[in-house]
Amino acid sequence: MRLTPSARLRPTPFQKAVNAAGITDVTIYNQMMLPVSYGDPEAEYKRLTESVAIWDVAAERQVEVRGPDADICVQYLTARDLSKMKYGQGKYVAMCDHEGRILNDPILLKLSDRYWFSIADSNMLLWVKAIAAEKGFDVTVREPDVSPLAVQGPRAEDLIVDLFGPHISSLKYFWFVETELNGIPLVLCRSGWSKQGGFELFLRDGKRGEELWNLVMEAGEVYGIGPGAPNGAERIESGLLSWGGDTTPDSNPFEAGMGRYVDVDIEPDFIGKAALQRILTEGGPSRLFTGLLIEAGDEPDGSTPWPMSERTPVWVEGEQVGTMSSVVYSPKLQQLVAVGQIRTGLVESEAMVEIETPTGRRAARCRALPLA
Amino acid sequence: MRLTPSARLRPTPFQKAVNAAGITDVTIYNQMMLPVSYGDPEAEYKRLTESVAIWDVAAERQVEVRGPDADICVQYLTARDLSKMKYGQGKYVAMCDHEGRILNDPILLKLSDRYWFSIADSNMLLWVKAIAAEKGFDVTVREPDVSPLAVQGPRAEDLIVDLFGPHISSLKYFWFVETELNGIPLVLCRSGWSKQGGFELFLRDGKRGEELWNLVMEAGEVYGIGPGAPNGAERIESGLLSWGGDTTPDSNPFEAGMGRYVDVDIEPDFIGKAALQRILTEGGPSRLFTGLLIEAGDEPDGSTPWPMSERTPVWVEGEQVGTMSSVVYSPKLQQLVAVGQIRTGLVESEAMVEIETPTGRRAARCRALPLA
Repeated sequence: MRLTPSARLRPTPFQKAVNAAGITDVTIYNQMMLPVSYGDPEAEYKRLTESVAIWDVAAERQVEVRGPDADICVQYLTARDLSKMKYGQGKYVAMCDHEGRILNDPILLKLSDRYWFSIADSNMLLWVKAIAAEKGFDVTVREPDVSPLAVQGPRAEDLIVDLFGPHISSLKYFWFVETELNGIPLVLCRSGWSKQGGFELFLRDGKRGEELWNLVMEAGEVYGIGPGAPNGAERIESGLLSWGGDTTPDSNPFEAGMGRYVDVDIEPDFIGKAALQRILTEGGPSRLFTGLLIEAGDEPDGSTPWPMSERTPVWVEGEQVGTMSSVVYSPKLQQLVAVGQIRTGLVESEAMVEIETPTGRRAARCRALPLA
Repeated sequence: MRLTPSARLRPTPFQKAVNAAGITDVTIYNQMMLPVSYGDPEAEYKRLTESVAIWDVAAERQVEVRGPDADICVQYLTARDLSKMKYGQGKYVAMCDHEGRILNDPILLKLSDRYWFSIADSNMLLWVKAIAAEKGFDVTVREPDVSPLAVQGPRAEDLIVDLFGPHISSLKYFWFVETELNGIPLVLCRSGWSKQGGFELFLRDGKRGEELWNLVMEAGEVYGIGPGAPNGAERIESGLLSWGGDTTPDSNPFEAGMGRYVDVDIEPDFIGKAALQRILTEGGPSRLFTGLLIEAGDEPDGSTPWPMSERTPVWVEGEQVGTMSSVVYSPKLQQLVAVGQIRTGLVESEAMVEIETPTGRRAARCRALPLA
């Protein structure tokens, strides 16, 4: 279906470059365009896993918190111990509601004088503004003019070193520097929604998006750079969660595989702390995320997934045991794979289940993420 | 551009019927599909203004507030006096942040034991949950399984009377009844995002969407019913606001033409009250919404608007005096029209301004909404 342009759905600072690069398929994420494909999924996967791809991920918007109470406000919003967090560091965090349900799974960046929650697809600006105002925290909360551009793939580091210098190689995962390129103000972070290695360039001046895109493309030419987007196949192979796609509105972080990033025993209170403690004392999550290896069916070549516009049931012997959210052909495993949210016990034992397809039920095996 | 299906972007309970009716163009609204066109805009406009159209507006999600503190919680969230609101009544309200900026402009429905904010495109569930929890209100906040289906147009009332009985004719604007059709639980409200007259059937069982659609289509056949969607031309002719499209993140309700629905002098506190009082004591809004009548240009037939994916500047003698958000061909006025947010003074005097088009600047005249 065609997506109708609207001022309500915001273009990105890289939109002109993205259009010129031949964008064909998009999604909407945080009320902003997010590229999905430039029309050649195989080439895009290959580029990401073998050389380097440039992604417009401006739709990962930032919620900025600054002011005298920023530290306590951000900790109150986050189900993870931030007491040792340093300037220049990013952390993958769960933001929960008062019942311990995940509202978003951002990367939190600690800048010199402010924090950014670099968010998944839910309007956390409203949540953070409401909490900060009602708690009386002395902070300013806003969405700044900051738009990430990702370079991902095994040659991404070479490219970034060419652009910014060899010192960048020592940057640890999720750490960042405040820098610039040709005077374009940036935050450069070793991060990105793939496991192929890479960086995100957080553009701090929305008027210079096309210029930044072009600088990166020129420098990347020797590495075979080309346009791409967060890749459904690679991210399931690598076990990366899609908040809102894989999660349901009632998912908690333990179910979503975020348990190791949740610190329920820290001293300062945070939203959802009591509820998360209760889940653990009552035996932990009753569902878990898992990969699903789907047995070959009647597709002509076994490689064509069906479109999924909603989560579908997963069955064992006629009883529903969970849901499936995303299905894609894995080039590495050469079979259809998916993400499931399945009853505890079945996941750990890598049980066989049945999934729904447009041509009937089909067998699949639970397999721990990452898949490849 | 093609929109990629995703479990993150939810289908509606009417999706199968909408697909069968030949949907061609969609938008995303509250992370849900919202139809835009079935491929024949002229027929869709004619149907809406001359007979009756059926609209899947499930993407108008509800934020439900119920519990002992529901009255005080809902008043605290709303910049309008609700003290005399009765069961069965709906009210158009502004929900503001603590600085008086509009976060959403829902219809608020007062049911027997709960309220629904029937929201525009911003995730007010997060806002309301945060406020209720931090204020300690004894309420439950959730998004219920409730999806509006609209029938709009001059024959909508005949159709609704055929389906529900003649007593429906006495229903006042924005009032509703809790009822059913063939056992399908509904709230039936005289409302809808057009000025052609009509009703919204709030479906309370998401499994029965296709059945409800088909019942309405069958009953509407004698009136020439057909599929449609909120109509860009009709809504600008009629002066209906698109929150997030026409408004900017810093718009206040006075700028957005909602001043007559704002009660800053009521006794109970509500969010934004002090800020809104301050705006009034400091002379009122500095910008106002206005219609724009665009002078004919070099389009082949004068009736083809250009796509607008962002707000564009509006000028007077080289100085920017506001922005333009939506442009569309008005069948009634037989010219291009748009919505602008323009400096106070120019609007009231119906000044001439200059707008941006892909082929250069062009003259337009401010004209109070509604335009026709």
